[in-house]
Amino acid sequence: MTARRSGGRSGRVAKRQSEAIRQFDTAWRQWVNPYPPIEQFSADEIEAIHRASLKVLSETGIKVLSAPAREYYVNAGMKLGEDDVIHFDPDLIMELIRKAPDTVTLHSRAKDRNVIIGGRNVGVTTSAGSPNCSDLQGGRRPGTLANFENYCKVAQSFDVIHLFGPVVEAQELPMNLRHLQTTRSVMTLTEKIPFVYFRGKQAIADCYEILRIANGLTDDEFRNTPTCYSVANSNSPLQLDGLMCRGIIDSARAGQMMILTPFTLAGAMAPVTIVGALVMQNAEALAGLCLSQIVRSGAPVCYGSFTSNVDMKTGAPAFGTPEYVKAAFASGQLARRYNLPLRSSGPTASNAPDAQAAYETQMSLWGALMGGTNLLLHGAGWLEGGLTVSAEKFIIDIEVLQMFAEIFKPLEVTDETLALEAITDVGHGGHFFGTQHTLDRFETAFYSPLLSDWSNFENWSERGSVDATTRANQIWHQTLEAYQPPEFDLARLEEMDDFIARRTAEGGADISR
Amino acid sequence: MTARRSGGRSGRVAKRQSEAIRQFDTAWRQWVNPYPPIEQFSADEIEAIHRASLKVLSETGIKVLSAPAREYYVNAGMKLGEDDVIHFDPDLIMELIRKAPDTVTLHSRAKDRNVIIGGRNVGVTTSAGSPNCSDLQGGRRPGTLANFENYCKVAQSFDVIHLFGPVVEAQELPMNLRHLQTTRSVMTLTEKIPFVYFRGKQAIADCYEILRIANGLTDDEFRNTPTCYSVANSNSPLQLDGLMCRGIIDSARAGQMMILTPFTLAGAMAPVTIVGALVMQNAEALAGLCLSQIVRSGAPVCYGSFTSNVDMKTGAPAFGTPEYVKAAFASGQLARRYNLPLRSSGPTASNAPDAQAAYETQMSLWGALMGGTNLLLHGAGWLEGGLTVSAEKFIIDIEVLQMFAEIFKPLEVTDETLALEAITDVGHGGHFFGTQHTLDRFETAFYSPLLSDWSNFENWSERGSVDATTRANQIWHQTLEAYQPPEFDLARLEEMDDFIARRTAEGGADISR
Repeated sequence: MTARRSGGRSGRVAKRQSEAIRQFDTAWRQWVNPYPPIEQFSADEIEAIHRASLKVLSETGIKVLSAPAREYYVNAGMKLGEDDVIHFDPDLIMELIRKAPDTVTLHSRAKDRNVIIGGRNVGVTTSAGSPNCSDLQGGRRPGTLANFENYCKVAQSFDVIHLFGPVVEAQELPMNLRHLQTTRSVMTLTEKIPFVYFRGKQAIADCYEILRIANGLTDDEFRNTPTCYSVANSNSPLQLDGLMCRGIIDSARAGQMMILTPFTLAGAMAPVTIVGALVMQNAEALAGLCLSQIVRSGAPVCYGSFTSNVDMKTGAPAFGTPEYVKAAFASGQLARRYNLPLRSSGPTASNAPDAQAAYETQMSLWGALMGGTNLLLHGAGWLEGGLTVSAEKFIIDIEVLQMFAEIFKPLEVTDETLALEAITDVGHGGHFFGTQHTLDRFETAFYSPLLSDWSNFENWSERGSVDATTRANQIWHQTLEAYQPPEFDLARLEEMDDFIARRTAEGGADISR
Repeated sequence: MTARRSGGRSGRVAKRQSEAIRQFDTAWRQWVNPYPPIEQFSADEIEAIHRASLKVLSETGIKVLSAPAREYYVNAGMKLGEDDVIHFDPDLIMELIRKAPDTVTLHSRAKDRNVIIGGRNVGVTTSAGSPNCSDLQGGRRPGTLANFENYCKVAQSFDVIHLFGPVVEAQELPMNLRHLQTTRSVMTLTEKIPFVYFRGKQAIADCYEILRIANGLTDDEFRNTPTCYSVANSNSPLQLDGLMCRGIIDSARAGQMMILTPFTLAGAMAPVTIVGALVMQNAEALAGLCLSQIVRSGAPVCYGSFTSNVDMKTGAPAFGTPEYVKAAFASGQLARRYNLPLRSSGPTASNAPDAQAAYETQMSLWGALMGGTNLLLHGAGWLEGGLTVSAEKFIIDIEVLQMFAEIFKPLEVTDETLALEAITDVGHGGHFFGTQHTLDRFETAFYSPLLSDWSNFENWSERGSVDATTRANQIWHQTLEAYQPPEFDLARLEEMDDFIARRTAEGGADISR
C-alpha cells in the first residue's frame, strides 16, 4: 500500500454545505430512536424461528462457492459435506456470533460526523446500486458518472443523510476502473460515510486504500478504524458465492463493516410464508456473519434484513407491503436476539415518484424504524424496486426523513412546556398568536418543511397548482445549484489522485474474483 | 316520534357490494390492533399533563355558552363563576369520567357489522365535513347531494370502511332540510354506521328518528342501542358553545355516541408547545365528556384528539407533521389514563392527491394507529385540511387502509409456516415457485393491492405510464359503475320516507339552536 504522506497543505476549500443552505436542512446529528421497538412475535416465537434456522444450517447447510471460505469454516470446526455444502454446528455458530460487537462506530473524515450503528442509534443512507436514474427533465436513462456526482452533491447538502450509497452506476466507465473514480467522487464531494462494493479482491483493496488516504490513516490505523460499509448478499436460497465470500473475508481482515443481507423474497427465493422466509433470512445471515468472526474475532458486522414478498400473479418483487412491514418488525427482534446491529431499508416498487412511491416507502420506513433498525439503507431516491434512482423521489424522501428526525426528538414536560401561565392569560375564546410564550418559541417550535406546501388552495392555485413531485424537481435543481464542496486536505487529494492514476495505468481491477 | 310499523315486506334489493366486487376488497371485519401502543411520555409525564389539565379546569374553567348545560354542571356540583365560566372540581370530574364506558358497540343495521370502539378494536370512517369535492375530471367544486351519494356508494363498496362520515356538504339543499336527505342517503345506500351532526335540537331529533326507523327499533330500544356517532368540537381555547352543548345533552339522553374533540392547533388556538396544547386538549375533552355523564351516567362517549400545529409563518393549519404524530401517541396515553376509547384522524394539508398527501396522511395514520386509537376519523378522502374531499385521495387511502388491515393480522408460527420441509426440499440455489408449500398458499399468502402497480417499467410504460393518482381516478369510476345498493327493508323505507316527507312539509329543522 502507498505510504502515508505527511500533511501540511491543508486547503479549506469551502464551508460546509449545511451552513450554506440551512433552510433545506436539519442540523447534523446522529438519530436516537426514543421508542421501544414494535415486536411482531412473542419471545417463544422468535426462539422457534431461531431454532428452525439453526436446524437448517446444521442439516441442509449452506452451499459455499469459495474455497478460501470453506477452508475458514472447516478450520473453525464446521463440517464440509457434499457439493461444497457447509454444515454448521449450532453451538459453535452461536459462540462465533457472540464475538461480533453490538455497536459499530463508523468514522467520518469530518471528525464530528462519526456514525454509531447499534443500540438506539440510527444511521441513514441514500439509495444504492441502481443501473438507471431519472428526473422529470431527462426521463429514465442509464446512469453516468455525472449523474453519480450529482447525487453526491445533493446528498452532501442534507444533514439527514449520514452515509452515502452508490446511488447509480456510472455505466460509461469500464468495470475495472469504475470503483476508482466513483470512490474518489464520494470522498471529495461528500463527507458521508462511503460504501465499498464487494467486486473482487483488487477492487476492494483499491477502495480501502483510497479511503485510508482520504481519512489520513496509517495502514494499522485503518485496520482498526471502520470508515466504510459493504453489503454481502447471500444467493438465496442457502448459497454464498465467491465474490461475496471474498468480500466477507477481506472486509473482516480490514476491520471494515460488513452487512450480511439475504435477498429473501417470500414466494420466490424463499418460502411463501413470511415466517419461513424469516427462517431462511436468519440462517443465511448467521452463516455469513460467523465467517467474519472466524476471519477476525470482533470484526464489525451488521445483521441485514430485506425480506419481502413477490406478486404471486407475476413473480414481480413487491416492497413496502404489509408483509414487508411485519418482516421488518420481526427482523429487529432477531437482530436483538443476537445483540447485533440491524440494517433495514426504505424501498418501493413504484415506477414513478408518485403517491404509490410515497405510501409504499413510508410503510417500509415505519416498519424499519419502529422495528428498531440501526442502519436505514436506501433511505432516499429508490424507485422501481431499485432499478432506478429518481431525483424527485430523493427530495420527497429527504422531507420524510427530516420528519422522522423530528419525531425522534423527545418532548420535554416542564412548567414552561405545560404552559399553564399562557393558558390562564389567554383565557376563553382568544388565541395564542401574540402571547409572550408563543413569541419566545415560534421560530423553532415546529418542523419547517422542505417540500410540503401548506398554503391554502387559492394561493396554491395562483402559483400554478404545482404538485409535490414537480416541486421536488425544483428543489433538486436549487440544491445542485447551491452546492459547495466540503473541505478536503490537498495533500491527501494529491496522494489519492497519484494512487488512482497508478492503478488506472495498471489496468484497474479484475472484478471477477 | 313515529310509532314503529310492523315489518313483513322485507325486500332484498341486492346482494352486498362486497360480494359483487370482491377484487377491490378485504372481507369485512373489525380491526384488532395486535401491537402495544407507542408511548410518547413516561407515566409521570402523563400525570403532569393530567394534573395541569385539572388545574386549568378548576382555576381558569370553561366558558359554557348554554344555559341548560350550565344548569347541569351546577346541579352536579360544579361552580358557576363570572361570565358563564364553569369551574370544575377535580375529584368530581374524575368521578364522573369514571362512569363512562371503556368500550362502545355501535350497532349496524347489517346485523353482522356492529363496530366495537374500545380496547384493541379499531373502527374506520370516511372523511367528513368538507364543503368542496374534487376529482380529475371535474376539478374542485362545491359539494352537492349527487357528490354526497357517490361517496356513499364508493364507501359501501369497501369493507375496510366501517363508519360513514358526512363526506361533503350537499350545498344545494337548504340547511333546514339537508340533514333529512343526507341521512336518508347514508341509510339506503350504505350499511356503514352513520354520523349525526350537532346542528340543533330539531335536526338531531330528526336524524335519530330516521335511524330508529331504519334500524327497526322501538323508542326504548333506540335509547339503549348506540347506532351512530357525533362529534362535539370545543371552541378552543376553553369554550363550549350552545350547539355543541345541545348535542352533548341530546346524544347522552338518546344513548348515542358522542366524541368530544377539541380543535387544539398549537400556536393558534392552543399553546405553541405540543405539551401545552395537550393540556388544553385534555381539559376541554374532560369538560365535555363529563357533561354527558351528568346527563346520563354511562352515556357512550369517546375521547377525541386532533392536536396539530400551524405554520408559524402563515398561521395555516398543518397535518401529518412530526408534532401531529407525537400528539397522537400522547393522546392514546391520555385516553387510556381515563379508560376511554380514543378517536384520532388521518388528515393532510396537501392541496392535491399527490405524494405530499400520501406521506402526510401516512404520518397521521401511523401516529393514530400505533398510538392505539379506537376510531380513525377522516380515514379516506380528506384533502386540503378538510376543505375538500377528493375521489382519487379516497381510493389512495382505501389502499393504505387495506394494507393496515393486513398488517394487523398476526403471523402464526407453526411447523407449517416455519416451512422447514420446503426449505429442505428446495435446497441450495433453487426457487420456491413450484413447491407444494407455495402452491397450497399462493392465492391468499399476500395482500393483493387495489391501486399499487408492481409491474416492471417496460410494461408500465407500454400501458401509458399511468401514475397512482390517475389510476385511483379510474378505480373510483369503476367502483361507482359496479355499485349495487345493499338490502333495505321496504316497510322501513316507506316509514322513513313518510317521516321525511312530513318533516319537510313542516319546514324541516331550525339549525340555530
